[in-house]
Parts: sequence; C-alpha cells; structure tokens
Amino acid sequence: MSRDYSHRLIVQEVAPRDGLQIEPKWVDTDDKIALIDKLSTCGFTRIEAGSFVSPKAIPALRDGDEVFHRIARRPGVIYVALIPNVKGAERALAAHADELNLVMSASQTHNRANMRMSCEASLAGFGDIVRLAAGSKVSLNATIATAFGCPFEGRIDEDRVVAIADTYREMGMHGITLADTTGMANPRQVARLVERVLERVPADALTLHFHNTRGLGLANVLAAYDAGARRFDAALGGLGGCPFAPGASGNICTEDLVNLCDETGIPTGIDLPALIELSRALPALVGHDVPGQLAKAGRNGDLHKAPDYVHAI
Amino acid sequence: MSRDYSHRLIVQEVAPRDGLQIEPKWVDTDDKIALIDKLSTCGFTRIEAGSFVSPKAIPALRDGDEVFHRIARRPGVIYVALIPNVKGAERALAAHADELNLVMSASQTHNRANMRMSCEASLAGFGDIVRLAAGSKVSLNATIATAFGCPFEGRIDEDRVVAIADTYREMGMHGITLADTTGMANPRQVARLVERVLERVPADALTLHFHNTRGLGLANVLAAYDAGARRFDAALGGLGGCPFAPGASGNICTEDLVNLCDETGIPTGIDLPALIELSRALPALVGHDVPGQLAKAGRNGDLHKAPDYVHAI
Repeated sequence: MSRDYSHRLIVQEVAPRDGLQIEPKWVDTDDKIALIDKLSTCGFTRIEAGSFVSPKAIPALRDGDEVFHRIARRPGVIYVALIPNVKGAERALAAHADELNLVMSASQTHNRANMRMSCEASLAGFGDIVRLAAGSKVSLNATIATAFGCPFEGRIDEDRVVAIADTYREMGMHGITLADTTGMANPRQVARLVERVLERVPADALTLHFHNTRGLGLANVLAAYDAGARRFDAALGGLGGCPFAPGASGNICTEDLVNLCDETGIPTGIDLPALIELSRALPALVGHDVPGQLAKAGRNGDLHKAPDYVHAI
Repeated sequence: MSRDYSHRLIVQEVAPRDGLQIEPKWVDTDDKIALIDKLSTCGFTRIEAGSFVSPKAIPALRDGDEVFHRIARRPGVIYVALIPNVKGAERALAAHADELNLVMSASQTHNRANMRMSCEASLAGFGDIVRLAAGSKVSLNATIATAFGCPFEGRIDEDRVVAIADTYREMGMHGITLADTTGMANPRQVARLVERVLERVPADALTLHFHNTRGLGLANVLAAYDAGARRFDAALGGLGGCPFAPGASGNICTEDLVNLCDETGIPTGIDLPALIELSRALPALVGHDVPGQLAKAGRNGDLHKAPDYVHAI
C-alpha cells in the first residue's frame, strides 16, 4: 500500500490553552506570554493562546485578556482564543484574537457537564457570536467535542457528527474541529469519519484534535492524514490530561508529532530542536513531569557514544 | 483508503523477559511464575517467559531455569526463551523451552555493545545452536535487533536487514523477528521493510518487535499490519524501557495494543479485562509506575457517571 507523505501537515499548538487549563499550579502571566512568544518563533502558523471563559470555571486561564494584549504578534501566526459564550467572544474581540474557537459536544450529556447547557442552547449562542463577529476580521472555528466517543454516553452516532458539521457550515463557521476530547478514537473510526466530513468541508477548514489517553494519538493522526486531513491540534510536552483518567496522557504531544512528520518526510515547517528545548523547560513551569516522549528520548539522530569495550572486540 | 481488519493479530507477550530484564528491583521467582501462569490464561499463544543469559549480565533473570521448570504449561501456548549463545541454548533445552529466540543486531556496534561479539561471531554461534537443536522438537526464532535504527550508528541499511533475514532462513531459522530495539522506527519505514521481508519470509514466521520510545509504537504496529505482518511482541504495562533514554517508554504495551485491536475489530483472542487487571498489579510487583495507558484510562466502554447537575439543565 503506497501512501503520499508530501502534503504539508499544519500543527496548531494548543498547550497555552488546552494544556494549561487543567494545571493545578498557577502559571504566571509573564511565563505564559514568554511561552507563547517562544512558540511563535518555532514555525507554527496557528497557536491557541488562551481562552475567555469564566475565571471561576477555569481559574488557570483567568488572565486571557492580558495574555492576548501582551504577546508579541508574529506576522503569519494566527492567535486563536477558545470561547464558551457571547461574553467570552466580546472579551476575545476586545483582546484582538485572530480567531474564535467555539465548542459544543456531540454528546448532550457531555455538553451539559462541560458547558452547563444543552446542545440547542449552545447552538443558539453560536448564532449570537456569528452575528457579533460579522463585519470584524475575526475568523470563526467551531469544535465538535466528543466527536469520537463520550465518557458518559459511550459511542456517538457518526450521522450526528456529520449533521453538526453541516450545521456549523450553514451558520457560517470558517473552520470545524473534530475533537476526541477524552481519547476514545481509533484509527479505523477516524479514517471513516474524516472521509465523510471531507465530503462537505474542505481540508484546509478541518482540524483534528486528538488526545493520547489510550496511546492511539499518533496512529489516529496518521489515519486522518491518510484520509486527507491536514490540520491537527497538539500540545507541547503532551500537556492536557483528562480529568476522568488520572495519570493518563493528555493532548497528543507536539514534538512527538513533529518528529513523526520529520521521520516520515511530511513537511510541517516547524523547528523540532527548538520545540524540544521548550518542552524540556515545561516540568519547571508546571511543577511535574509531562507525557511527551521525544524530549526524553531525543531524536533518532541524537546518537549515543558506544561503550569503550566495543573497540576491543 | 479501505483496509482489511479481519486477519488475526498474534501477540507474543514479552513482559517476563524484555519487561523484567532491566528492572532494578528483584522480582521473586514465585512472583515471576505467578505472572506467567496468569498470562497463560489470558488467551496468548506465545509468551517469552525468560532468558538464559549470564547471571552477571542480566541478574534480574538469573532464575530462568527454575521459572521454566515450574510454570504451568498451558496446552496451545508456546513458551519462548531468549538465548545469547550455545551455553544458554543448552540450559533452555534442559528447561524444556518450546522455542529459542536468538538475537543479533543489524548494527555491528550495537551487537558488540549488547552481545560483546561481532556479528560474524554471533552468526557462527547461531550455527552451533542450529546443530544443537537439530533432532529436538524445539523451534528456532532469530531476531534482527536495531533493524530500524541504531542508537550508536544511526540509520541501518535496509538491504543489510533483508540480507540478514535471508541468512537466518538459510541457516534454518523457523521464525524471524525485526526488532526496533530502541524505538527509532517510523510507520513509513516499517511498511517498506515489512513489505520487502514478506517477499522472502511467510507472514506466520515474521514477528515485529516495537518499542514506544518516541510514541510511535502502535502507529508502527498498524503500518506493519497493513503491510501484511501478523505477529507482534508486546509487554504487559509497557514494561521494558530503554537504557539510553531515562523516563522514555518501553516495549509497546500489550493491553494498549489489544485495546486498539478490539476497537478496530482486529481479532486477537486475548481477554482484555483480565490483562488490565494483571497490569494494574504491576506497579506493586516492580515498585514503580508503568507506561501503559489503558490500565489508567480504562476501556472506552467503562463509562463515567455524569455530574448530578446535568439532570437539572
């Protein structure tokens, strides 16, 4: 089976948002800004830099306004903000976010647990945000969370996911993300769903968001890429975690993903040694080990010195 | 791209050998035997139960003779022993191992570092073992270590790997393993090399041995499976590690692999809930957390209770 590895894979770095949001230790605003500014020099074209949610709900990201105002905007980089509602959208527009990422779960139960509203209420809010953003230069992305499975409901009907994608497009969303929020996707399912969604959404408007909760993150990326997907979320160091699975891995790890691409020849435009250096500074920032593996193992090309006795054999 | 998930995937459990060999804490012989006996009831057809190497080189496995004598042999399960030399083969035959697994690295430097001899000396020893085993019922497998990369030499010429496979077959080896000893393989390379080797070795005689050092273990399994490979080594809990990458992951994790198969519909014949239970007992056995993720996250079907407030929305 011959595959085509020549298409560029776009990585959207989400550590400043999906990575940091569940960290129990407060990360200083200056440190967040320094991290984002360093990420901006690594070759990313998209960085999810923060969220505008209730400070009570996500205290770790309560400084989103200041972060967005003070980061050094690098030309060619789109700085994305996660938005739960109209109030968050107003704050994000005031902070000059380039793109708003709205979230609704395919699972009613998960949406009620996560957003504290029904899917219908979420969609009504999305309509308000579309009207608010009209006339501004901001672009809109809408995420379908739990698109590959729900930790409360289990399997999610693929027709429902496809129908939500249609609804998002009809509402005027520029981009759509299929999110495997708690790492339940498998490569066979990913290939099938990506193929169906790409029949209605162009590849440059579709993002895949995988967690590595059950070790399948990079296998799912390859299955999606083989099916035509080109844009992927990933978090430096594999930050993120899952509140339902203590000790389980978080988002797919950016440097592990870029290493996969470098080794297979998939172009990303991202500077892997710079990423590894940033990742190795993460444990000091968040106060614990992180799941990413490349920063521990090094790249294939980082050769080891053979023991002296081999020369005597 | 349509794929065929209907072929059975054979998992050879290697935790008792490749998993335990680098553990610093001594695991009692009784505990090793209990682990192997429990693994024997999980549906495996192949278990690498120990090795017959110098007790000075691998003290953790110095009780291989007693382990092989005392385990409860389950009909239908092949109990494999890793063998470094003729002396080890004699011990393994005396202990009634069903299969001997011989190892040589494709990389001269790695073979000298690991086996303390040249590749030519390894092959000469293999010839002695073939003669020793002739007339017995034992089957012989030979592993090509560092087949996908060497931590000292870097890239390994694929022609060399294919030539070694030919040599092994000409010597009378029944099975051949391609081992990614330090987790340097990528899916594109795996597909290419597996296709080439399957032109000369039947699928039921070829095993792939992957480490998850850089997070690509299960992606490599799928690439190999898609290319026609059917037999894979894996270690309960992802035990194993890599002496050159502290903190990096070890062998691909058996229960993570079986979960991938269960979710995609690939038959394995292995009892996943029983495996998870065994894996969850590993930290107490080895004295530290293990890298496997499924035992932490649970299966997709292990649903969580939604928070009470969702019912009021």
